[in-house]
Amino acid sequence: MTSQLTTHPLDAGDKLAAKRAAFDLPEGVIYLDGNSLGPLPAHVPARIEEVIRKEWGTSLIRAWNAHGWVEMQNRIGDRIGRLVGAAPGQIVAGDSTSINLFKVLSAALALRPERKVILSDTGNFPTDLYMAQGLRDLLDKGHELRLVAPEEVAGAIDDSVAVMMLTQVDYRTGRRHDMKDLTQRAHAAGAIALWDLAHSAGAFQVELDACVADFAIGCGYKYLNGGPGAPAFVYVARRHQGVARQPLAGWHGHEAPFAFELDYRPAQGIDQMKVGTTPILSMAALEAALDVFDDVDMAVLRAKSVSLCELFIREVESRCEGLVLASPRDAAVRGSQVSFHFPEGYALMQALIARGVIGDFRAPDIVRFGFTPLYVSHADVVAAVDILADILATRAWDRHEYKTRAKVT
Amino acid sequence: MTSQLTTHPLDAGDKLAAKRAAFDLPEGVIYLDGNSLGPLPAHVPARIEEVIRKEWGTSLIRAWNAHGWVEMQNRIGDRIGRLVGAAPGQIVAGDSTSINLFKVLSAALALRPERKVILSDTGNFPTDLYMAQGLRDLLDKGHELRLVAPEEVAGAIDDSVAVMMLTQVDYRTGRRHDMKDLTQRAHAAGAIALWDLAHSAGAFQVELDACVADFAIGCGYKYLNGGPGAPAFVYVARRHQGVARQPLAGWHGHEAPFAFELDYRPAQGIDQMKVGTTPILSMAALEAALDVFDDVDMAVLRAKSVSLCELFIREVESRCEGLVLASPRDAAVRGSQVSFHFPEGYALMQALIARGVIGDFRAPDIVRFGFTPLYVSHADVVAAVDILADILATRAWDRHEYKTRAKVT
Repeated sequence: MTSQLTTHPLDAGDKLAAKRAAFDLPEGVIYLDGNSLGPLPAHVPARIEEVIRKEWGTSLIRAWNAHGWVEMQNRIGDRIGRLVGAAPGQIVAGDSTSINLFKVLSAALALRPERKVILSDTGNFPTDLYMAQGLRDLLDKGHELRLVAPEEVAGAIDDSVAVMMLTQVDYRTGRRHDMKDLTQRAHAAGAIALWDLAHSAGAFQVELDACVADFAIGCGYKYLNGGPGAPAFVYVARRHQGVARQPLAGWHGHEAPFAFELDYRPAQGIDQMKVGTTPILSMAALEAALDVFDDVDMAVLRAKSVSLCELFIREVESRCEGLVLASPRDAAVRGSQVSFHFPEGYALMQALIARGVIGDFRAPDIVRFGFTPLYVSHADVVAAVDILADILATRAWDRHEYKTRAKVT
Repeated sequence: MTSQLTTHPLDAGDKLAAKRAAFDLPEGVIYLDGNSLGPLPAHVPARIEEVIRKEWGTSLIRAWNAHGWVEMQNRIGDRIGRLVGAAPGQIVAGDSTSINLFKVLSAALALRPERKVILSDTGNFPTDLYMAQGLRDLLDKGHELRLVAPEEVAGAIDDSVAVMMLTQVDYRTGRRHDMKDLTQRAHAAGAIALWDLAHSAGAFQVELDACVADFAIGCGYKYLNGGPGAPAFVYVARRHQGVARQPLAGWHGHEAPFAFELDYRPAQGIDQMKVGTTPILSMAALEAALDVFDDVDMAVLRAKSVSLCELFIREVESRCEGLVLASPRDAAVRGSQVSFHFPEGYALMQALIARGVIGDFRAPDIVRFGFTPLYVSHADVVAAVDILADILATRAWDRHEYKTRAKVT
C-alpha cells in the first residue's frame, strides 16, 4: 500500500504492525473496505493449492476422512467462537448469512409459538429483513415483522415480541447496538434474542455467551478475510440445542448422515444447523484465513480500531468540507467503520477508488470506510484523507465516468 | 492411473480418449467414484490461483464488477443448461442441492395449494426426503410425503399429488426413471414434476425442456467435476418464472439487490432462486471444470458409458463369484454406474481402495462403481475387475482393518 513509505506518530508501538505482512495487498491501494471483502491473507494461495492438488486431486473421495473435511464445519465454527465469545460446540460454519438467518429465525419462532412479532430495525441489513419476510409469508400464521428506528428498539420490546432480530452494527453508519443490554431487555420480556454479527466478528470483542445471546449468525468474508463469498456461520446457545430445531433438514444435520435412513432424525447438538455439503475450497480459505487471528488480542485490536476511526474523523472534519459525519461520534456505540454523508457520494467514492483509496458507497448518500487494524495504519488514514481532501478541493469527483453506476455498488 | 500401460480393443477409436489428459489423476488409481466426487481437471489449479491472487488479491472488492463475479451464478447455470437440455435463463448455480430442493419444492407446492401430497420413492437420496419432511413440518398444513417403491411411482400418480419429486438416477442401484414418461403422467394428473439430477447432469443426455419438466436441481461435484462440495444448481422452467416463488428471500433474489430497500421485491426471472452471496472460489472451480465439457457430444459420452458399464457387468459376472448385480441389466433404464450386492460390501470396498480401485459402499450391502467416460477406459474396467477378482479369490477383504467404518462411507 502506498503509505508504507510514510510514518505517523500514533503507529509507534503498534502491537499489530507485523500483521500487515500477513496480507497480500496491492501496491498503490489504501484498503478501507475490509468490512465488505477482507483482503487476501498471504498464506492462503499455498494452502488452497494444497487442498486442490493434494487433498482433492490425489486423495479424491478419501479426502473426506483423510484430510478432516468431515469436521471442517465444526472446526471453523469453534475457531470463530473464540473471536465472538462462544465456548466450543455452539457454532458451525457453512451456507450463507441469509440461509443461516432463516435457520435460526425459524428455530427461534418455534420457541415462542404463542407470539407473532419479529422485532427488528430499519438499520438491519436488507437480506435479514427479506429472509424474515420470506419466512413470515411461508409460515402464513399471522407473524408480523415490526421495524422501528435503531434508537427505538429498546422501547419497542414488549411481551408481544417473539424474537428480537438485530444486526449489531449498522452496515451504513457503523452504529452499534448494546448486545448485553438489549438481550437482557428481550429476555425480561420473554423474547428470544437473535444477533447478526456481519460487521462484528473479527472487528471487536463480541461476548455471545456472556451476553446470554440465544442465536447468532455472521459473515466469513468481511473482517474474517475468508475470501469472496466465504461461508457464513451460525451460533446456537447450548441451552437451546436439541430443543430449537431448524427446518432446512439436510442430511448433514441428521443424527447419522451416512446411515442413509429414509426419515430425518435431527442431530442433538449444533450439528443440526448443518444442511448440505459445504464448498470445501471456500471453506478451506476461510479456515486458513483464521490463522491470522490466532495470536491477536481482540482488546488490542479494538483499541487500535478506535484510534484509527477517531483519527479519520478528526482529519476529515478538519480538512474535508461538505462531508457530514453519519457515524456515531462516540466510539462506544460504533463498530469499526466511519461513514459520512456526501450528496454525490457515489461519484466521490468512484473518484477515491480511482486514486487508490477503496471504500464503499451505500445509498442514498453514504461513503463508508472500514478500519481494519490488522493491515491499516494511522499513516494510511492520513494518506487517505490527503487524497480525499484533494479530490474535494479540485472537484475531481464531478466527472461523468464517476457517476455511471456499476452493478455492484 | 495404472491401466495407462494396458490396452483394450474396445478403446480403439474412443473419441473421448484425449479427455483423460484433461484430468490430474493420481498414479496407481482406477477412479470409479466420479459419481461421488469428480476428479481434478488439470487446468483448475491455475485458474483458482488466478482468482485468488489476481481477482481477490489485487482487485479486491472491485472484482465483483471487474471480473464478472456478479453474473457467475447465471453464467454457470447457462453452461450447465446445455448439458441438461435447458435453454438459457432457466438455471442458476449456487447453494447446496438440499437448499435448492427446499426452494423448488416450496415453489411447487404453492402452485398446487389445494393438494397435499408430495409423491417420492424410497430410492430417492435421503437428503431430498429429509428436506421435504422439514418443509412439511414447517408448513404445518397437512402435507403428506408419500413414498412408494421406485417401480410403483407411475401407478401412484393420481389427482391427490401436488408434486412428484424424484431423483432420476437411484444413488444406490443406478436405476433410472423415464423422465419424459413420468413427467407426462404427472402433468396429466395435474401434478408438478420436480427432478433431482444429482447422478444425471454430466452423466448422460438430459432433456429438461423437451420433457417439459417443471423444476429441477442438481449437483456440481459429481459428474460435473466442480470440486468438493461444489455449489449446486436449480432449474425453473420459464413458464413458471415470475409465478412460482421460493421462500428463501435473500438479497441476491431481489429485483434490485443493491438498492438496499427494506421490502423484498422478487426478481421476475430465474434470479429469484438466488439467495445470499455464493462462495466464489468454489464457484470458479465449478465454472472452470465445465470447460472440459465444451466440445463433448453427450451422445458420444453416453455410448461410451453404456459400453463401459456393460463390459464391467460381463467381466464381474464371469469372474467374481459372490457378487449379485444390483443395477438394472438394461442400459436403457440405468444411469452411468453399476452396483453389486455383496454381504461384506463395506470391507470389500475398503480392500479395493487399498489396491487402488476406488468406488463407493452404500448401506446395507452395495458396492457401487461409477463409470465416467471422460477419464475411464475399457482397459481400466478390465484392470479393476482383475483386482476385484483377486481380492475375492484370496478373501483379502476379510481383514479387521477393512471392517472398521470411517465417518464417511
